[in-house]
Amino acid sequence: MLTENTNAKAEALIRARLDSWVKAFHAQDIDTIMSHYAPDILAFDAIGQLQFKGIDAYRAHWQACMAMCTGPFIFDIHELGITAGDDLAYAHYVCRCGGTNEKGEQQSGWLRVTLCFRLEHDQWMIAHEHFSSPFDPVNGKVLSDLTP
Amino acid sequence: MLTENTNAKAEALIRARLDSWVKAFHAQDIDTIMSHYAPDILAFDAIGQLQFKGIDAYRAHWQACMAMCTGPFIFDIHELGITAGDDLAYAHYVCRCGGTNEKGEQQSGWLRVTLCFRLEHDQWMIAHEHFSSPFDPVNGKVLSDLTP
Repeated sequence: MLTENTNAKAEALIRARLDSWVKAFHAQDIDTIMSHYAPDILAFDAIGQLQFKGIDAYRAHWQACMAMCTGPFIFDIHELGITAGDDLAYAHYVCRCGGTNEKGEQQSGWLRVTLCFRLEHDQWMIAHEHFSSPFDPVNGKVLSDLTP
Repeated sequence: MLTENTNAKAEALIRARLDSWVKAFHAQDIDTIMSHYAPDILAFDAIGQLQFKGIDAYRAHWQACMAMCTGPFIFDIHELGITAGDDLAYAHYVCRCGGTNEKGEQQSGWLRVTLCFRLEHDQWMIAHEHFSSPFDPVNGKVLSDLTP
């Protein structure tokens, strides 16, 4: 049975992978971002489509998102939880995500994120990723002003 | 390294757990639904709040959702993928989810679902669950008419 202390080494490696992903995100370095994903990634992103199958489809979506947003980007991770086994792991967090508008004002909202990892060739790869915001079922609007 | 054939037995057990969850959902059997979750579940649901921490908070949310929806419920799972290790696993699927309005008309939309499991006392428990719909970043409206 897994405990809080199971696979602390794997947890540290996954934390480092996430740090490097965030660094690449802030640098808008699409190649480094994509290097964290398995080729067969299945992604559920917060916007646009129901799902993205495979690295090429997901890369195209990332490029479209980066063209839409203006920097400097905000991406503050809170309440990160990682559960790691020998060759599978998952993580979840909430984050404040946003950008800066043409007046220089920060615009952001909170997202929920789930990451599922597979160990491949001694590297923890993101095989599944799920970003989202909850919505109000009465008016169908995204609830972007919720805070943790 | 995990392969498609890794832990086929665990995959079958997880599939059976999901089947029993769906059956309980259709029966509106809240006790049986909740019996699939770990006491410390962290849930990101499609509606209402950013997150639900622990079984009591999640149960209260389930009860509120069931009071809001009228049956018979629609919950059709498509494109289920399960990746299982020795004591951790994750699964993802898209589903058509909805209910029946007062005129007897079916109303439904597509959701994305991620499930993260831990093996506890020989039982696969859902330790993390993430339901969502994507939204349109231009108008902030949920994209409920997307299909896979």
